[in-house]
Amino acid sequence: MSKNSLTKTKEPIYLDNASSSPIDISVINEMLPFLTDFYGNPSSLHGLGRKSNLAVSKARRQISKLIGSRSNEIYFTSGGTESNNLALIGSARLICNLKPTCKRILISKIEHDSIIETIKFIEKDMGFEIDYVPIEKDGSIDLDIFREMVSTKTGLISIMLANNEIGTIQPIRDMVEIAKAKNNETIFHSDAVQALGKIPINVNDLKIDMMTISSHKINGPKGIGALFIKQGIHIKPIIFGGGQEMNLRSGTENVIAIVGFGKACEIWKEKLASVQIKIKGLQKYMIDRIINEIPGSVLNGSMENRIFNNVNFSFSGINGEDLLIKLDEYGIEASTGSACSSNKKQKASHVLKALGLTYDQISGSIRFSIGYQNTQEELKIAIDALKNLIKEFRKINGNSFA
Amino acid sequence: MSKNSLTKTKEPIYLDNASSSPIDISVINEMLPFLTDFYGNPSSLHGLGRKSNLAVSKARRQISKLIGSRSNEIYFTSGGTESNNLALIGSARLICNLKPTCKRILISKIEHDSIIETIKFIEKDMGFEIDYVPIEKDGSIDLDIFREMVSTKTGLISIMLANNEIGTIQPIRDMVEIAKAKNNETIFHSDAVQALGKIPINVNDLKIDMMTISSHKINGPKGIGALFIKQGIHIKPIIFGGGQEMNLRSGTENVIAIVGFGKACEIWKEKLASVQIKIKGLQKYMIDRIINEIPGSVLNGSMENRIFNNVNFSFSGINGEDLLIKLDEYGIEASTGSACSSNKKQKASHVLKALGLTYDQISGSIRFSIGYQNTQEELKIAIDALKNLIKEFRKINGNSFA
Repeated sequence: MSKNSLTKTKEPIYLDNASSSPIDISVINEMLPFLTDFYGNPSSLHGLGRKSNLAVSKARRQISKLIGSRSNEIYFTSGGTESNNLALIGSARLICNLKPTCKRILISKIEHDSIIETIKFIEKDMGFEIDYVPIEKDGSIDLDIFREMVSTKTGLISIMLANNEIGTIQPIRDMVEIAKAKNNETIFHSDAVQALGKIPINVNDLKIDMMTISSHKINGPKGIGALFIKQGIHIKPIIFGGGQEMNLRSGTENVIAIVGFGKACEIWKEKLASVQIKIKGLQKYMIDRIINEIPGSVLNGSMENRIFNNVNFSFSGINGEDLLIKLDEYGIEASTGSACSSNKKQKASHVLKALGLTYDQISGSIRFSIGYQNTQEELKIAIDALKNLIKEFRKINGNSFA
Repeated sequence: MSKNSLTKTKEPIYLDNASSSPIDISVINEMLPFLTDFYGNPSSLHGLGRKSNLAVSKARRQISKLIGSRSNEIYFTSGGTESNNLALIGSARLICNLKPTCKRILISKIEHDSIIETIKFIEKDMGFEIDYVPIEKDGSIDLDIFREMVSTKTGLISIMLANNEIGTIQPIRDMVEIAKAKNNETIFHSDAVQALGKIPINVNDLKIDMMTISSHKINGPKGIGALFIKQGIHIKPIIFGGGQEMNLRSGTENVIAIVGFGKACEIWKEKLASVQIKIKGLQKYMIDRIINEIPGSVLNGSMENRIFNNVNFSFSGINGEDLLIKLDEYGIEASTGSACSSNKKQKASHVLKALGLTYDQISGSIRFSIGYQNTQEELKIAIDALKNLIKEFRKINGNSFA
């Protein structure tokens, strides 16, 4: 394969921020004293213990401010996956005990694996019935179909606020109102891991009961997430022990990461509005250029109803994984979809399948996710490389677009 | 209360290393590049992703070397508590499916809360029967009693290698042999959180099937632990999603913390032998002086069969928590027992109860846990303060020892 005018860049052009994002320098600086000096266990009664405890409380406040909750509605977990597991299994355990006639769960077909796989466990081991809401061609959920699928037996609903692969934003508030009108007892959970820091979120406006958020998607450290649980909503723990996190999640608090998560939320609270304008511009630049300059390219998901950092395209006659590896050689880092699914070899994206895409479109898909560190110059290099690589691939394969 | 000759120290004298330990400077330095530069998701296929993936693999090797396992027998979790939950619930789920006649679990009466509380869940929600092995006055388990309690119905045994409050080391290898002779199918798990870095551990010598370890008790960061699972032993996951950790523990790997945990294990592998001599000397100095100079003091646990960093005393006529708070004022940080239990207000230590201590002895207990950063000069200050404070407390209370 000839390299045309491409040159390899030294620093990678990182366009996989939805998989994991660089830690903000202010976040790192906030974390450092807890690496070096403040190592107490927050449950210890002495000075260093109290210092850790106060830091955890501060982070709880910082996080609650970003999502409009009270700080005592924030429960720390080891990440988005555990938060989703806690929300679903914790609710299911409660429903088994207290509302055994409500053992139906409603989720969408495009939820993250940590919802889909957890639901399969609840179905098989806990005897629940699962309803899957289909999605429209643009990734959105039809509210009329949704309304018909909620029943008085629906004990739990979990619909993501924004999708991780195609970035579609769902009308959660409308869904909550529809669901509660049919069955006021239904618990409504939303996985907001990809929405946090991308759209303004207020849990009271959304009227949801539980919401999952994660640190490393918003320029905080990995290994820490949280579950918002509205005051008055009760679920059961899934990890047992010393009774941390108001008895809902045992285990010594990951203080360093919690401090970083708190700071990351504080930063996003301050700069969401300004960053939004910048990244939205970059997103538009990328989408427009790809559509105009790369034949046989189709944008997956909605054009308008989309978080501002997500760009997902299918390229006809291209293998996305091959393209990804070649892009990586040129220092451009992207993804074929969900990083989590890459552990499951050969598993085609269930999200793109649910959109009704053909096999060719699914295997030819790539996701670029933009961060606030990215520049238009970087995107220019990335798009030029993408354009040339696709041309080369198609030439080799004798594809008609070449 | 008069201060006698005491002066407040500026830096705390930290004698609560069993609750959480300072992070070693080499560990911090190993972690820093992953805070600043290497933020890729280990599941991503690009360069930064592979960099993270390699770092996780390296840490797995470092950890496996400290415990004599293969690296593919190490499964990362968010900490000791989650590892204990995974070991127990994961086994119980498998037993329910494949060995429903083996629904008895055997544990000791002095296990950590993350075992005790998890067992209660398994008993109540999964229909298991639990047997509790009693302990002797010195904290050890009588092997004859243990032998009698193992039955052909015992599907799972969990006995800690060293106790967190009194430091007693159990003869795990003997127990495994006794258990397997009675029922070769029994799965044997050991919580080695407090033993790691305190005694040499080789999982093959111990002949155990599963073992829990944690990073922040051995001068690594919080928020990361691991479960050793012997090749050929199968358990089921308790957290579901993207299929990380060979499908046993989903969720983006906590790379920064994993790197730190790996380095901490490497350090302990190198210096366990030398550190052991130093801390054992400090432990002896502390125990001898307290016994000789403070009347009405009783060492809890075994004198010989004890990890080298643990010192646990009951002081007659003293409230341990009051003493702790006063010590803290003088910059000396210790614990009344398990930090984790401090979330459960007014809960008397189940470990000291199991030893047969009186209420007075339990409420008058204090644990000092020594780290490699501690010096004899620090211990001298701590013991002098302890001695004077106890004298003062007893004078106020009109106690006969005063």
